Order: sequence, then C-alpha cells, then structure tokens
Amino acid sequence: MSHSKYESGNRKSNEIFIGKKPLMTYVTATLVQLANEPTVVIKARGKSITRAVDVAQIIVKRMNTLGYRVEKVKLGSDVLTGTEDDKPRNVSTIEVSISRSK
Amino acid sequence: MSHSKYESGNRKSNEIFIGKKPLMTYVTATLVQLANEPTVVIKARGKSITRAVDVAQIIVKRMNTLGYRVEKVKLGSDVLTGTEDDKPRNVSTIEVSISRSK
Repeated sequence: MSHSKYESGNRKSNEIFIGKKPLMTYVTATLVQLANEPTVVIKARGKSITRAVDVAQIIVKRMNTLGYRVEKVKLGSDVLTGTEDDKPRNVSTIEVSISRSK
Repeated sequence: MSHSKYESGNRKSNEIFIGKKPLMTYVTATLVQLANEPTVVIKARGKSITRAVDVAQIIVKRMNTLGYRVEKVKLGSDVLTGTEDDKPRNVSTIEVSISRSK
C-alpha cells in the first residue's frame, strides 16, 4: 500500500478525498459538508483528479440553483513511497475549494 | 467523432491541447510556446485532465530552475455532441495558465 501525507490521517472535517466510489457518493458528501462548513475542499490525485473536477462541476453547474462556486483550485504533487518497484514516484494532486457564492 | 467548441479550430497560438501523445510532447510544446509568449494555457478535458496537471507540475516543480509558475486554473464543462448513443454528454474541462514567475 503506497503512503504519503495524503493518507496520514490528519484530515480536516471539511475535506473530501476522491477515491473509487461512485461519483454521486462524493457529490452528496460534499453537499452535506457544505451545509455545515463555509468552504469544502475536494482533494484528489492521479487518475482521480478528473473525478474531483467532475464533482465540482456537478455541484457548481448542474446544481447551480444551490448557489455554490469554485473558490480556488490548487495544483500540486505528492511523492508516493512503497510502490511495487520501491522507487518513489511523483503523482499530481488537485485541491478544489467550493464555497457559497457571495 | 464528437464535436464541441474544443475542436472548432479557433485555437490561439498560446494554447496547448492535451491529447493522447506522450506527456513529454506536451511539456516540450509548452516550453517552446513559453519562449515566445508570456502565458501559455494548457487545456484538457475528461480523462486528459490529469495529464494537463502532470504537464504543469513537471514544468513548475521538476523544472523549477526555469522559473515558471501556475498563474490560474479554470475548471469548466463542455457538452459533447455526436456521441455513440447520440445523447449530448457533459465532460469536465480544465485550463491551466503557466507564466514566468514575477
């Protein structure tokens, strides 16, 4: 199992990590968080980056009556250790902050 | 072949569209553009979104001596028409603007 700060467990309550579950699971989770938090950060890395953008677009565009917007998008990269060939590997990351439109 | 404004040919000279070529093809193309343009916009949609982030991270992080930075990241969605089942489909898009650090 590869490790990085991404999974080190110091997750804040307003963070949603995109994994392999169905997309709407993350849309629902984000909406539930947005009911309690002013801003929710959708985080993903590698191949899940596209799904993070999908979740953000569904909330902002297709559910536009709810009045949420993309506040900030942060790109980064993480070093994956413990991979099969034991070589550390760079993986891209994205953080999409969603908040209520002003 | 699916169509959208994405392929309507009104491409500007400082735009790089991520497709299926090897990653370094797009890294090189972006660097060549950055030699002539103050800002280059890396565009991708759907599954290629992750590769657009990879290209940006390679240029900004692994080639950090070149002094480029991510200036802006824009998320959006496009409507794909002419798909197999003839139903228009939403696809997420990303635009990553890279420019010289101030």
